[in-house]
Amino acid sequence: MTTPLASWRPGATRDAILAFVRAVTTQGGDDFVPPSERIAVFDNDGTLWCEQPVQVQVAFSEARVSAMAEADPTLKTRQPWKAFLEHDMATLHALGKKGVFEVAFAAHSGMTAETFDQIAKAWLGEALHPKFRRPYLELVYRPQLELLGYLRSQGFKTFIVSGGGADFIRAFAERTYGVPPEQVVGSTVNTRLDEIDGKLQLTKLPALQSFDDREEKVRNIGLHIGRRPILAVGNSDGDLAMMRYTLSGTGRRMALLLHHDDDDREVAYDRDFRLSPLVEALDRADDYGITTVSVKRDWAAVFVEPRRVD
Amino acid sequence: MTTPLASWRPGATRDAILAFVRAVTTQGGDDFVPPSERIAVFDNDGTLWCEQPVQVQVAFSEARVSAMAEADPTLKTRQPWKAFLEHDMATLHALGKKGVFEVAFAAHSGMTAETFDQIAKAWLGEALHPKFRRPYLELVYRPQLELLGYLRSQGFKTFIVSGGGADFIRAFAERTYGVPPEQVVGSTVNTRLDEIDGKLQLTKLPALQSFDDREEKVRNIGLHIGRRPILAVGNSDGDLAMMRYTLSGTGRRMALLLHHDDDDREVAYDRDFRLSPLVEALDRADDYGITTVSVKRDWAAVFVEPRRVD
Repeated sequence: MTTPLASWRPGATRDAILAFVRAVTTQGGDDFVPPSERIAVFDNDGTLWCEQPVQVQVAFSEARVSAMAEADPTLKTRQPWKAFLEHDMATLHALGKKGVFEVAFAAHSGMTAETFDQIAKAWLGEALHPKFRRPYLELVYRPQLELLGYLRSQGFKTFIVSGGGADFIRAFAERTYGVPPEQVVGSTVNTRLDEIDGKLQLTKLPALQSFDDREEKVRNIGLHIGRRPILAVGNSDGDLAMMRYTLSGTGRRMALLLHHDDDDREVAYDRDFRLSPLVEALDRADDYGITTVSVKRDWAAVFVEPRRVD
Repeated sequence: MTTPLASWRPGATRDAILAFVRAVTTQGGDDFVPPSERIAVFDNDGTLWCEQPVQVQVAFSEARVSAMAEADPTLKTRQPWKAFLEHDMATLHALGKKGVFEVAFAAHSGMTAETFDQIAKAWLGEALHPKFRRPYLELVYRPQLELLGYLRSQGFKTFIVSGGGADFIRAFAERTYGVPPEQVVGSTVNTRLDEIDGKLQLTKLPALQSFDDREEKVRNIGLHIGRRPILAVGNSDGDLAMMRYTLSGTGRRMALLLHHDDDDREVAYDRDFRLSPLVEALDRADDYGITTVSVKRDWAAVFVEPRRVD
């Protein structure tokens, strides 16, 4: 058997994860949790893949808005479209996380779920990250892929609970993370059922149905998963409610907060990232019983090896 | 290996199901579907368990309203509570399916998801069906349990997509049907995240979030499952949209419509069941390519063997 969590450095953090998993999987032990209750939830942006200097869905939306501006050049002079086209992050960040995503989702609407899936897959296969010059799917965190796989090998079910668009994440999550579409919870838009030539199809509308951030992440865990997780992993205050909800259940539980503190291998950021700041969760991690993970200290490698994208 | 679908009588219907499953699972065949795309959706009331003479959740709600009336006797004189307390089906049916469920969901609100789960499990362990005098969990259709198990043995993922309350079905679906909570899609209420003594909990509110019937079933398939099913099973016009959506995809697909036509072994009903009529789906099954299943003709047994409820 290969060593679990090989890209995690030996030390207190890795030991704590291994001890937690051992405790909840040891039959007859005080902390044993039956497999059906071994629910783990992971944030996506900044937790499973790199969100700096730009969240991937924002970059994708810029590409979508560019395509829209070909058809309607007036978008080039109208906000907020102009900001997307000019990669004007100051203006975008001023919209706030929800505002940015509302525009992003509007740019993804008016098409069927199947068409959206094809467009997202095609873009992910071509686009390159502006700093690292690698496809975004190569900027997935290797230690987290190992953690996902290790948890599943120990009978856990792994879910993504992200502020990003559920349909966008579903376009790659099964191949990249081993997480099937129904285990992806994210922000969503309303849809309409259309009949065209006798065939029924779902069309994505430009109206936000759920912005899956902060308390809404917990409500959506109730809606989609229907059980309280025993492990939650995140990296911002947007994940704090689901971490605290996870820790509020009975029995042994764990919450991991990823702190991006390695400017050499990735990007160091926390309080000042306007789109998704990390303040309260960092300051009060000890009070809440949250285990902080340091990229610099705890991860021997950051990104996955380059590989083919399909 | 045991014969699959042993409680299904040999004949055209069983042959059609077996041929469909063989076609989509034969590697290299024209109709092969990879396991991750083998999504099957089942309605619950009248499809997986008996909904006559009363839908189980209505009976459960009557019990809940009785408990509420202990605390607030004025409910005994106020509609629609009075109708629940007096089992006044004419008044309840006049509310329509959505109206009945709105009252039912109101009777399930004001408690945490965990408390609701305990109450539902306790009631299902005690309550008896008014006609058959057996626990409701024994009035699950044996041929359908075999079908669910057979599909899973052939790499399918099985989902429930029901007008009933998602949380109510989740209280028994894993043990009874082998369908885990995250694979149960149903009607839902809004929830609120409360902090009590430093612990976070979700409280069910008396406001309907989604009434999972007709077109909404398809929208919720998009929301929760994120892939178009290749097999849909239902028994009423409330299931027609998801059947047609299933059949509208490319490649080989199947939709099964269960027709309750056996008054000896169960209850015969279709057009006149006000809460959930079967009219268009029955009349137009051939046009739409839906395969009709007759309880009388196709099922050698109807209910599961009596067994312990836990």
